[in-house]
Order: sequence, then structure tokens, then C-alpha cells
Amino acid sequence: MSERPTPVSVIGLGPMGRAVAGAFLDAGHPTTVWNRTAARTEPLVARGATGAATAAGAVAAGPLVVTCLLDDDAVHAVLDPVAFGGGRTLVNLTSASPEQARRRAAWARERGIAYLDGTIMTPTPTIGRSSALVLYSGPEETYRTQAPVLASLGGTATYLGDDPGRAAAYDMALLDIFWHSVGGIVHGLALARAEGISGGALAPYAESIFGLLPEMTARFARQLDEGVHPGERSTIASAAAGIDHIIATAEVHGIDTGTLTASRALLRRAVEAGHGADGLSRLAATLARPAA
Amino acid sequence: MSERPTPVSVIGLGPMGRAVAGAFLDAGHPTTVWNRTAARTEPLVARGATGAATAAGAVAAGPLVVTCLLDDDAVHAVLDPVAFGGGRTLVNLTSASPEQARRRAAWARERGIAYLDGTIMTPTPTIGRSSALVLYSGPEETYRTQAPVLASLGGTATYLGDDPGRAAAYDMALLDIFWHSVGGIVHGLALARAEGISGGALAPYAESIFGLLPEMTARFARQLDEGVHPGERSTIASAAAGIDHIIATAEVHGIDTGTLTASRALLRRAVEAGHGADGLSRLAATLARPAA
Repeated sequence: MSERPTPVSVIGLGPMGRAVAGAFLDAGHPTTVWNRTAARTEPLVARGATGAATAAGAVAAGPLVVTCLLDDDAVHAVLDPVAFGGGRTLVNLTSASPEQARRRAAWARERGIAYLDGTIMTPTPTIGRSSALVLYSGPEETYRTQAPVLASLGGTATYLGDDPGRAAAYDMALLDIFWHSVGGIVHGLALARAEGISGGALAPYAESIFGLLPEMTARFARQLDEGVHPGERSTIASAAAGIDHIIATAEVHGIDTGTLTASRALLRRAVEAGHGADGLSRLAATLARPAA
Repeated sequence: MSERPTPVSVIGLGPMGRAVAGAFLDAGHPTTVWNRTAARTEPLVARGATGAATAAGAVAAGPLVVTCLLDDDAVHAVLDPVAFGGGRTLVNLTSASPEQARRRAAWARERGIAYLDGTIMTPTPTIGRSSALVLYSGPEETYRTQAPVLASLGGTATYLGDDPGRAAAYDMALLDIFWHSVGGIVHGLALARAEGISGGALAPYAESIFGLLPEMTARFARQLDEGVHPGERSTIASAAAGIDHIIATAEVHGIDTGTLTASRALLRRAVEAGHGADGLSRLAATLARPAA
């Protein structure tokens, strides 16, 4: 339990919203909850939360409002009709693009609401535990004021500065990496299965692949920041050749090659631009200049 | 040093071939080396290897020939003109597709050469160390006979059965996962940079993403093997919505969205086929039926 219990209102009780509300309850904060489907409040009310009949009632219940909704359209639909009283803070944990987060911050400023944009980088079961990672951006004073309560969400809370879109920008870049990797997992499993290799047989070997990625990311990041892309370990030209083999194997089995052919097109464009002997970090620069 | 030194000939001295030859030398095996560019043999000769003047000379030097060439075309160009004497074993560590490996095994069989296909799953610096992972397939007797010498390459050697294409199939599936992830790393770094986030600022957070992948792969693999794709943790429909946000953010910055739009097309096809509420492992099945 934190030292000073602070009333918190949680709006939106999907899986993540429920975990967030539960973490505030566990930390001893008086917690009011609201969800469009009212039945979702019941398990939290059983744990000591107060169920609000309306979103406006949840906002009125206390100084700190935390939203965890499906998307920015849902934030708009739920909060636009609500009159926020004075001195309220809104911490918006709803996934959004950086531009949406900046527009939401402007919306809050017009209404005199202190606004923090937050993005939860770890899955639902981490909330309230040491493995949680939540990123925040917005006015530093607002973050400092709310940090003790937000610590209820557990793990590492990181403040990224006053641009309200910054947390969402990290979210997008990291989800970008994540979704590419997920696409690779399902594609590799499909290719293996077509070759008569079960998922269970392949999966243990994939761990050695994932083990390579953190060092590679740090190295590519450093090379991108420095603008040097040495091809000592692996070149764009060799990657293009390697991807050709995978595409050929997928085609033998009639497996969709959309993501692989898009990668090959990028590699070929880099080769045509004279970067074939460069390292793969060069691709991050190539991606940003499709017309080059 | 292994108990019985066995003469080994290594053909192809790119970075991986050099590491392989060096590992045989370090293990005390008399090692003959050949490379099209003869200068590449010099550092190995300085370490005790014998330089062969021709590929035929390297093959003639001993009973075990290990090839580590650029691709199957290079194996064809180098070995086709060479008459293998009786009782030779060829261990081909050249990257190839499963079909190429099977054709290479048939080629060897016609010539009375015992054949193992091998694929090295870990980077050059791991060779000869405990972290190396090398997969082999081909006749079990051939593998058992050569395993003590091949142990010089270090780490874990895994025998995958007598289908000579099996090691290459694992290679393709794992490289498939790898290249998708690499594509994500460079795309995420490009997106972050466009948002004013340096590589160095983003990279540490990517580790928490990669930490999620082994468990996810094992879970997807199990679900694919069992043919059940529960959407409890994440659904195809929510992934499609999430990717939309990333695409929109990339488009704002003029970053190529080829791989992401290919993923979105796959997700949408799965939604249209009625799988929107299913888990993402379903995609592995969807990928294999593009016409469904």
C-alpha cells in the first residue's frame, strides 16, 4: 500500500483496464470504475471498487481519471460529453498514434485538464508486478505529481519528456518491431509445417534466433545514430540472396510471400542505390526515403 | 583435441568456412583448405593447415570433405568437375533450400559419396564454442561415423533424421523468423528516428519485446499442432487494428509500409474468413491457404 491513498477513477475495463483498476485497488487507492458494459465492473466491485453508473460519475468521483479504452475514437465518444471539474488530471493509457496523443493533449489543455499520455509496453499479467513497463509523456510537473499513484501499476515507469506524443511514438516503434516478429513466427511455423516439421519441433530452435536480436538491435541503433553501416558481419546483398531462398521454399508450398517479397523489394532497392556491401542497419535509412 | 585426429578438407573460406576450418585445426585434425581466391588460405596455413592448389586436390587429401560455399550454384561449380575417390564423405554446410539439399544428396548418391547436409544456425564467432548450433540430416550411419569429428564445430550438434532436406527446412523456417524480425528492427528504428527518437534511446526498450517472443512461439506452436487458436490473449481483429496505427504513423513520415501492408492484408483475409476472434496462431494456417 502506498503512503497516501488517492482516489482514482478507471474508465474502460477491457483486459488491460481491469488489470490497471485491480493494481490501484491492490495498492490501497479508493478506486471508482466505469465500463460501457456495466457487468464488467462487478468483479472489481467485489474487490472493493466503487461502480459508477456513468462515465461522468466516474470523472466526478475524484481528481485522477485513468482511461484505458479501445482506441482514440472510444476516448472521444466517452469523454467528449463529460464536463471535467476543476483540477482534474487525465492519464490516458489508450493506445494511439503520436498525432492522436498530441491532439488529445490539446483537447485536454482547452478544457483545463492536466494531461499525461501513457503506454503500457508489457502484457496484462505484468501489471502491478516488477516486470511491468509503462512509458509516460506530457508536462513534467503533472508526471511528478502523479508518479506515486502511478507506481501502483508496478515495475518500471519511465518519463519521456513533455511532448505528449512521445510515449505513443515509442509504442509505435516497439509495436512495429513486435508485429514484424510475430509475422515471422507464424510464417516460419507455416513453412516448417509444410515441410513436415511440427511447431513443437521447431519452437525450441527459435529461441536461439531471438537470443541474437537484442545485440543486433543495439548495434544497428548505434550504426544508425552514427550514420555508418559496416558490412563486416552481414551485408544487404547477402540478405537479399538469403531471402530469395526462403521465398522459393514458401512458393513450393503455396505459402503467401507478401511480407518476404516486400522485404526483398526493400533490399533490392538498397542494392540498386549502391548499398549492397553495407550492413543491414543501412536499411533503416533506406526505408525512410522510398523515392531515393 | 579429439581422440582420433581425422584428416578434413574444407572447401570455401568465406567468414564461416574460415571459422569451420579453424575449429577443425583447433581440435587437432589435419586440415586441408581450398578457396577460389587462394589468398584466403594463408592465415589458415599459418595456423597449420595445408593449402590445396585445386578443389580436386582438397578432395583427394582425405576421406572427409566439408563444403561451406556461397550457395548451391557454387557447390555445383566447384564440385561437379571433381572426381571423388571411393569412400569419401561430403558434409555440405552451404545454405540451400530443402529441395536443393535433396538434389545434392541424390547427386552424391549417384557418385557413391556418403552425404550429410548441415546447416549452421549461429553466427561465425560461435563456431568451436559451446554456443554453436549445427543441424544435420542424411543417413544416420553417416552422421554417427562423422559425429566425433563434427563435434569440433562446438556446441550442440543435432541430427534431424535421414531426409537430407530436413536440416535445410529447419534453416529456412528459422531464417524466415529471423528475417522478419530483422525487418522489424530496421523499420522500428526508422519510425523512431522519424519521431525524433534516437536508436540508442529506443534499443533498450526493444529487449522487453524480444523477451516475449520465446513463450509466444512455444504457445503458437502448440496451438498450431493442436489446431486450436484461442483468442484470449490477443485476437486477429485487434492485431489488424494495431497494425493500422503503425501504418498510419509510418505514412505520416513517408516511410515504406510494404511489409506492414502485406501483414495487414493477411490479417484482413483471416478476418474475412471468419477468424477475427481467433488467436494469432491461426495465421500460420491462413498463410498456407492463400486461395481460401
